[in-house]
Amino acid sequence: MSENKITLAHGSGGQLTHELIKHLFVRYFANPHLSRLTDAAVLSLPDLRVAMTTDSYVIRPLFFPGGNIGKLAVCGTVNDLAVMGAKPLYLTCGLIIEEQFDYETLEQIVASMAHTARDAGVKIVTGDTKVIERGNGDGLFINTAGIGVCEYQFPPAIEIGDKIVINGTLGDHEIAVLSARQNLGFDFEVASDCAPLADLIVHVLKAHSSVKFMRDPTRGGLAMVLNEIVEEQPFGIALDETEIPLKDAVRGICAVLGFDPLYLANEGKVVMVVNADDAPRLVDTMRAHPLGRDSRIIGEIVDAPQGMVYLRTTIGGKRIVDMPVGTQLPRIC
Amino acid sequence: MSENKITLAHGSGGQLTHELIKHLFVRYFANPHLSRLTDAAVLSLPDLRVAMTTDSYVIRPLFFPGGNIGKLAVCGTVNDLAVMGAKPLYLTCGLIIEEQFDYETLEQIVASMAHTARDAGVKIVTGDTKVIERGNGDGLFINTAGIGVCEYQFPPAIEIGDKIVINGTLGDHEIAVLSARQNLGFDFEVASDCAPLADLIVHVLKAHSSVKFMRDPTRGGLAMVLNEIVEEQPFGIALDETEIPLKDAVRGICAVLGFDPLYLANEGKVVMVVNADDAPRLVDTMRAHPLGRDSRIIGEIVDAPQGMVYLRTTIGGKRIVDMPVGTQLPRIC
Repeated sequence: MSENKITLAHGSGGQLTHELIKHLFVRYFANPHLSRLTDAAVLSLPDLRVAMTTDSYVIRPLFFPGGNIGKLAVCGTVNDLAVMGAKPLYLTCGLIIEEQFDYETLEQIVASMAHTARDAGVKIVTGDTKVIERGNGDGLFINTAGIGVCEYQFPPAIEIGDKIVINGTLGDHEIAVLSARQNLGFDFEVASDCAPLADLIVHVLKAHSSVKFMRDPTRGGLAMVLNEIVEEQPFGIALDETEIPLKDAVRGICAVLGFDPLYLANEGKVVMVVNADDAPRLVDTMRAHPLGRDSRIIGEIVDAPQGMVYLRTTIGGKRIVDMPVGTQLPRIC
Repeated sequence: MSENKITLAHGSGGQLTHELIKHLFVRYFANPHLSRLTDAAVLSLPDLRVAMTTDSYVIRPLFFPGGNIGKLAVCGTVNDLAVMGAKPLYLTCGLIIEEQFDYETLEQIVASMAHTARDAGVKIVTGDTKVIERGNGDGLFINTAGIGVCEYQFPPAIEIGDKIVINGTLGDHEIAVLSARQNLGFDFEVASDCAPLADLIVHVLKAHSSVKFMRDPTRGGLAMVLNEIVEEQPFGIALDETEIPLKDAVRGICAVLGFDPLYLANEGKVVMVVNADDAPRLVDTMRAHPLGRDSRIIGEIVDAPQGMVYLRTTIGGKRIVDMPVGTQLPRIC
């Protein structure tokens, strides 16, 4: 690692984050759980497999269309467990609050956490609060850690022909937060997709044993998740641009501001790699759930180019979808 | 709750923190695990009891005699599990880093976390890194959450006559950090007691089934822990001032600056309530461990005044030891 300073890009979820984790944390904390680089740790406790995960939430503004930092802090951690095939059970909640933070605002956020936890079927069982001097923090940071019991057994290796499935439109969360922060002044509002996915995922896994991989495309977006799937693997991924679900408003804002929706953060989306034969039926199952109504097959595992993700564009071309490098967008989560 | 603003005192570990937790978190997150108000949650997973805890570390300066924020972030969470009678197993690590933070400093801190985790016999199994814009944070915040397996069964209720035991001198951590921060210019150095206590505690619990309660006296110090023990109980606690172990340097600094050592934070101390008959033998067991050499019986459970802690002073008087209110000291942890 040649840099001597931490930059915003180290926290962007892109390649530099990836390198920081590999070169620093995996190196020092070396253990078999951590080096799998998944979002949650699967722990062999004496009698059962428990998944454990953590995430800090530093989003600004604290409130945005469709959610707030508290709702997000529960959804994000619940989703990290759910995509591991675990049933989320228990969360911790660590707050870092700047002094003079408004008490009623805090109450609203805590109430939202509680509400979302009930929705998601998890309990917040322990917590910690630190208050820091004014000027040293930015209002409120929340960390949640969570554990769940692993119930789903992922079938073996990903194969050529497997389908890529997503449960709905891309980029809603990032556009919602950016609009709220920047006062972009568009005359339509996009609400964040922020939602706990555990119920949808359980619903799908009960009916299907064909799901080989799941991940929630948050920071770094779909592009990041797909690049992690193919990294150093003997296969690639082809995405079909026409199949990628986008809200008209998001498509419009991306066109105007030059954003690529594949890199936008989501907080209520899950990407799955699914056995080809079962994929259409699985999409039907997902569509029967409120959080899966816009589910689609958006691409597939291909034999070449290996280790890469490309997009078959609407006009019949091909475009490489790289791992995000640095920050194409202002940091929002 | 009449205040509308969060103040530093809400994070001080004293009465306002206590009220914030009771009135906000317990109210909203209501569940039987949380309302016990212990440092870690004991979770009935299907097949075994797992303890889970979290803590955020916002200490300044990041380095101090005897430790740094990374060592502290591991010790603190390990100790919160150990005092629940749990064997700490797995930790999460969430970092919030201000951009432009020095990479080598980060590496030093991470290395220290890794070293301390090995010492404590725990694995850091998952993590998360957020980088925030310069000026929005104060260099580095660390959150750790941890789980452990509950191995020790606490015997039933605390009784009149039970002894209060501590494993060494009070206040070393807080004085070390204050000196490092304020350049107090004393010509002696006090090192923080920051240490993982799991090994000492296992060592004690293997040989003794007489420990009825344990807690690590961190923020709010010994005064806070003892007040929590007696709160709404039909007994009180009497402390013997002559028995309370203090380093000469800490005693001197307290005398000069007007601090009460009972309220100073510790990061390598455990307070136990122990059956009277077994207490002397237990102190001997503790003294055989490197982290227990200065163990002492410092007081006992008394029948009156109920719900209160008092100190039998060196000159034969009695002084009430209240729950800390507000911040007698600059916030250090």
